[in-house]
Amino acid sequence: MEATARSVEAEIEALLPRSEGPEAQVVEAMRYACLGGGKRLRPFLLCQTAGLFDVPERQGLRAAAAVEMLHSYSLVHDDLPCMDDSDLRRGRPTLHKATDEATAVLAGDALLTEAFAVLAAPETHEDPAVRCALTARLAQAAGALGMVGGQMIDIAAEEGRLALDLAGLERLQALKTGALIACSVEMGALLGRAGETERGRLLDYARKLGLAFQIKDDILDVESSPEELGKPAGQDEAQAKATFVSFLGLEGAREKAGVLVKEALECLDSFGAKADFLRETAIFVIERRS
Amino acid sequence: MEATARSVEAEIEALLPRSEGPEAQVVEAMRYACLGGGKRLRPFLLCQTAGLFDVPERQGLRAAAAVEMLHSYSLVHDDLPCMDDSDLRRGRPTLHKATDEATAVLAGDALLTEAFAVLAAPETHEDPAVRCALTARLAQAAGALGMVGGQMIDIAAEEGRLALDLAGLERLQALKTGALIACSVEMGALLGRAGETERGRLLDYARKLGLAFQIKDDILDVESSPEELGKPAGQDEAQAKATFVSFLGLEGAREKAGVLVKEALECLDSFGAKADFLRETAIFVIERRS
Repeated sequence: MEATARSVEAEIEALLPRSEGPEAQVVEAMRYACLGGGKRLRPFLLCQTAGLFDVPERQGLRAAAAVEMLHSYSLVHDDLPCMDDSDLRRGRPTLHKATDEATAVLAGDALLTEAFAVLAAPETHEDPAVRCALTARLAQAAGALGMVGGQMIDIAAEEGRLALDLAGLERLQALKTGALIACSVEMGALLGRAGETERGRLLDYARKLGLAFQIKDDILDVESSPEELGKPAGQDEAQAKATFVSFLGLEGAREKAGVLVKEALECLDSFGAKADFLRETAIFVIERRS
Repeated sequence: MEATARSVEAEIEALLPRSEGPEAQVVEAMRYACLGGGKRLRPFLLCQTAGLFDVPERQGLRAAAAVEMLHSYSLVHDDLPCMDDSDLRRGRPTLHKATDEATAVLAGDALLTEAFAVLAAPETHEDPAVRCALTARLAQAAGALGMVGGQMIDIAAEEGRLALDLAGLERLQALKTGALIACSVEMGALLGRAGETERGRLLDYARKLGLAFQIKDDILDVESSPEELGKPAGQDEAQAKATFVSFLGLEGAREKAGVLVKEALECLDSFGAKADFLRETAIFVIERRS
């Protein structure tokens, strides 16, 4: 996972635009947002899934870089004062704190745009039909009925305009973080021209993994220290936020995450030893400390 | 031009996502941002250019809808308090005034995303290589070395961190508004599989038209009433902004715009009567009252 993180970081570095002009300020901000570490879970899932189908490494890395640019944009915009108003991310000042709000909005916009530029370019796959499928898939996961919609629901819930039950919370999560995680796995399968059955199994795996990931995030908010998280802990309870822990209790949340990971592993049964890293990822998702 | 505006508006209406869930708030905001009138200059240029090559009307309208979604997102984000802090747009409250800042940021994000979803979909062109070319071209025009970069320069200049000379102002304009205008014409040519020579001439036309458009905007800010503009007038002088009028004077700006339009018309010489609407557009750009 660390090796993939390094390779994706290098790929993003190579793909980000360069400028000597006065617009360099936004280019630097894009770099700050994208190259500051992070688990790179989505790129890893994409590359590992592509690996199941012997996709050339470079193609997987380009698509993974696009997904990570898009993920980075979403973090930058979510951290803005008008959204979650966060000062810290991965142990560093958030982008609008390190620069200013206008630069952060624009850098996010440019990262979102650049993600699609990368996918549409011939180097990402020799078949333009595959590149279109990747573009359409990422746009679907990121748009108003995906990630952006999830963030909209999250804000409405935090502002008290919307009361969430457990099903509502699961849907919020499926849109806000689940959609892009599932998309990462599906993009790997698209690069590899996987058949319908295989795509279906991998999507099931990704959905269960994504939900387990969010449940674990809620658990970590209760259990971890700010040092481990690289951001404040205990925020959810302080804000009386609806979380999987608040609905299920700590033990119930742990149990649900465990069952999901077990089911996610079963989805991989037909893929043999090549899927071992995807199996380990599912276990990592609930055993991680940050 | 009004007929195209109506057709594009109907196309956007049909293409925008629909939702009954709690994320409907962001979908409604997207509609507000996209369907509030406007000249629809970019869609018209795209459709008229596509028409030179007998592109089916539906394909032109879909690509035009994508460009207009992208243009609408840029207006929503530019109007934000951390950017231009504008309260009025096309005679209505700006989106963050009509809703709130978080919803406006998210609606802009979703419109940008949706633009690429539309271009990547098979209905936009039967050849996926053309769809990829459209996607790449739009991303290039919209990104850090295009529209977003232009907005970054504009903000730096307005905050007094950057002193612009006339060449610097022309470059700002080429990125901030010129890139998307040129892209609209080029996307029409891409849909029609125009040859290199024709593409070059059309791009020249579009660049000259785009610059004339911005010069006229600066002239209108001096000459027009708020009622005509649908937004406050006289803002540039009040803010001591670098504009083509401040560099060239009102008469010098008019003259430069006139020369550019004349040159733009010459670029169309080889296209015959089919290009008459593009010719009229060039004249409209400097004769318009808002």
